[in-house]
Amino acid sequence: MLKVLYADREGVPATDRGLAYGDGLFETIRMCGPKAVLRRYHLNRMVSDAERIGIKVGYAELDQELTRATSRLMPAGRTDAWILKMILTRGSGGRGYRPPGSAQQHLVFAAAAMPPMPEPTGVVVRRSRFPLTVNPRLAGIKTLNRLEQVMASSEFTGEEWELIMSDTTGDLVEGTRTNLLARVGDEWLTPPVSSIAVAGVMRQYVLECLQKVGERVVEQTLPTAIDSLPGFRGLYLLNSVFGIVAVRSFDAHDLPVDDALATICDPIETLE
Amino acid sequence: MLKVLYADREGVPATDRGLAYGDGLFETIRMCGPKAVLRRYHLNRMVSDAERIGIKVGYAELDQELTRATSRLMPAGRTDAWILKMILTRGSGGRGYRPPGSAQQHLVFAAAAMPPMPEPTGVVVRRSRFPLTVNPRLAGIKTLNRLEQVMASSEFTGEEWELIMSDTTGDLVEGTRTNLLARVGDEWLTPPVSSIAVAGVMRQYVLECLQKVGERVVEQTLPTAIDSLPGFRGLYLLNSVFGIVAVRSFDAHDLPVDDALATICDPIETLE
Repeated sequence: MLKVLYADREGVPATDRGLAYGDGLFETIRMCGPKAVLRRYHLNRMVSDAERIGIKVGYAELDQELTRATSRLMPAGRTDAWILKMILTRGSGGRGYRPPGSAQQHLVFAAAAMPPMPEPTGVVVRRSRFPLTVNPRLAGIKTLNRLEQVMASSEFTGEEWELIMSDTTGDLVEGTRTNLLARVGDEWLTPPVSSIAVAGVMRQYVLECLQKVGERVVEQTLPTAIDSLPGFRGLYLLNSVFGIVAVRSFDAHDLPVDDALATICDPIETLE
Repeated sequence: MLKVLYADREGVPATDRGLAYGDGLFETIRMCGPKAVLRRYHLNRMVSDAERIGIKVGYAELDQELTRATSRLMPAGRTDAWILKMILTRGSGGRGYRPPGSAQQHLVFAAAAMPPMPEPTGVVVRRSRFPLTVNPRLAGIKTLNRLEQVMASSEFTGEEWELIMSDTTGDLVEGTRTNLLARVGDEWLTPPVSSIAVAGVMRQYVLECLQKVGERVVEQTLPTAIDSLPGFRGLYLLNSVFGIVAVRSFDAHDLPVDDALATICDPIETLE
């Protein structure tokens, strides 16, 4: 059974396992007025990630609470973009790390302002010096264990829109808050879920779009010298708040930018 | 500047970065009445771990708050064992993962009952099937990112006192809540800090004791078939609440148990 908490109204019990161990999940949802962009994708991911870490929660109850939270947190008549964050934790209890046999999960809602959108002509990115390690059993799950992304983000100088993290072999796997997609020849390359910390819902949506129109997608990590791949045509960052963001400069190398994806996927603000 | 919170009195702001990202640290301290066992070790570790992840905190302020928390949380006249947990987070704020330029850190105190001590004749342990991955830049730091230990702990059947986690090569590196030490011939083996999630203060204390009396310590991961190491004489689990715990059964293999460490290190309840 869920206990729902609103960040603007109350705190989280200090015994919450989300705080103690990062024992939980989160979703950051772009809202257009009352509409949650990629709603089903977010809810489906939270339900399936919860199952992978043994937190029992159903789609219907999350869906219902998201509707309630939207009414409560959205100023009346609002139609512009805002952000709704959902945190699901295993609740309190258990013996140390050992999860409790049954617990009341906590579901925390917080509203935030929409951040500024990146330049449509493309963004500047750089490689992070902070490596990403991925536990094979937790790969792709949007858990509350995000200190690696925090540490990588502390390298932002103000010149980059995103920092790209490498695995321990040096291959590019993921931005701090975005998934990677490269266009090379007639193929699209993206690091596989097994190599990434968070399998984003925008990544899933874009891959579905590509498959629907018969484009060829290859799941592999990307070499550091990405623009030296024969036939390299562009690098894109995928994020459920910002949509598809083209990279125009990577580690001070200019990259080509094309708008092929814009003809394949719908604009983010129109997505259900 | 620290904001101190008491778990029995108030919640943690739902915007706390400890909850959002596991952006913080914790210490679990064994108390004997008003005395914090291994007090300097705990405080020194929290200060140096905080420095490694860029949270500014000083020894003197933590020390002072620990003294205050002890007075507040300890029933008058108490002399027996209890547990005091300290959680330090980066506080609230920042832009997504990006840490705020300056923040008011949160320091949360919670008291708990002393758990039952293990049998002095040794404990039963088993290998966990959940692998441990360690980011080289976060190795050994007692952060709030502990979902791997939670997941391993969900395998407890009630028969084991501890579950031992392996690295991705299969070598033994760490218990869910203990560090490992093996006695082999005239040497003591323990996995190096670079291979472990948490470099425990009990591990540090025991290594200092061994070095003080001129024992030879070798830092290396341990093979799965640990009892087939030529000259194998015993496996010990180190934890700052339970002290030194001998293993008498590992994956259903009986192990030898000797009390060599008891002649080298002082009993945990006597430590300052």
